[in-house]
Amino acid sequence: MLSDDERRMLDLPGFAKLTTLNASGAPQATVRWFRRLDDHVTMIAPASSIKARHIANDSRVVVVVDAPDNGYEYIELRGHAELVRDDAGAREELRHIAARYIGAGADAYAASLSEDPRVIIVLHPERVRYHQGRPPTGSSRAL
Amino acid sequence: MLSDDERRMLDLPGFAKLTTLNASGAPQATVRWFRRLDDHVTMIAPASSIKARHIANDSRVVVVVDAPDNGYEYIELRGHAELVRDDAGAREELRHIAARYIGAGADAYAASLSEDPRVIIVLHPERVRYHQGRPPTGSSRAL
Repeated sequence: MLSDDERRMLDLPGFAKLTTLNASGAPQATVRWFRRLDDHVTMIAPASSIKARHIANDSRVVVVVDAPDNGYEYIELRGHAELVRDDAGAREELRHIAARYIGAGADAYAASLSEDPRVIIVLHPERVRYHQGRPPTGSSRAL
Repeated sequence: MLSDDERRMLDLPGFAKLTTLNASGAPQATVRWFRRLDDHVTMIAPASSIKARHIANDSRVVVVVDAPDNGYEYIELRGHAELVRDDAGAREELRHIAARYIGAGADAYAASLSEDPRVIIVLHPERVRYHQGRPPTGSSRAL
């Protein structure tokens, strides 16, 4: 489902801006580390966190990831998120995710987490929009 | 309502990740230029755009802005967005917004826009969360 270009974009160490819906249906956003696995993306969160509770109530989410060195290049992923309630699996997944951002420090980092149970948030994108923008010139489009 | 630190953060030339709700209530996101004016933020969009139509139908939005040089520092603004249907005013507002990103090129840029009527999206934040993060060390929190 994801194109090669979209996979390359998602494999950059950008940050996922994740929006969930609260109990009244209003959008609420946070910023997360993530990684791509095949055609989905994974994030980690405490099971007790607001975002995990939102997803348990309404699984519709959107994620925007922008390129680390170019705010005009971004990808939007819309779809349903799945909560995987597997604390050990989530801690293992976090090591892989953290390695994208802090390299060799990921293991120590994962080991330093509190004991609060973690969940894996898995987003299966149903709509993907990749905006391959650059800073505008006189004739290009603004944001 | 915004603190001095929040105002300073919003006055950096970061990009607004704007999430609106579609007709079925699902979140949809885009990336926009913006500026802060007093305690609100403004963005420009074509009146016919998806985001403007979403807001006309349900004005609840969330905006995330991250710092241009630090993805760990971001601000989340939640609230209701107002659509100001004033094409001339929107084009004038765009000149101010664009100047934050492209400086002296803003006037030429604004003059190059198509004739499609523009609206001003004004977000009056009701909830503000400023995450003054830095890259994690072994003992700090991940995203």
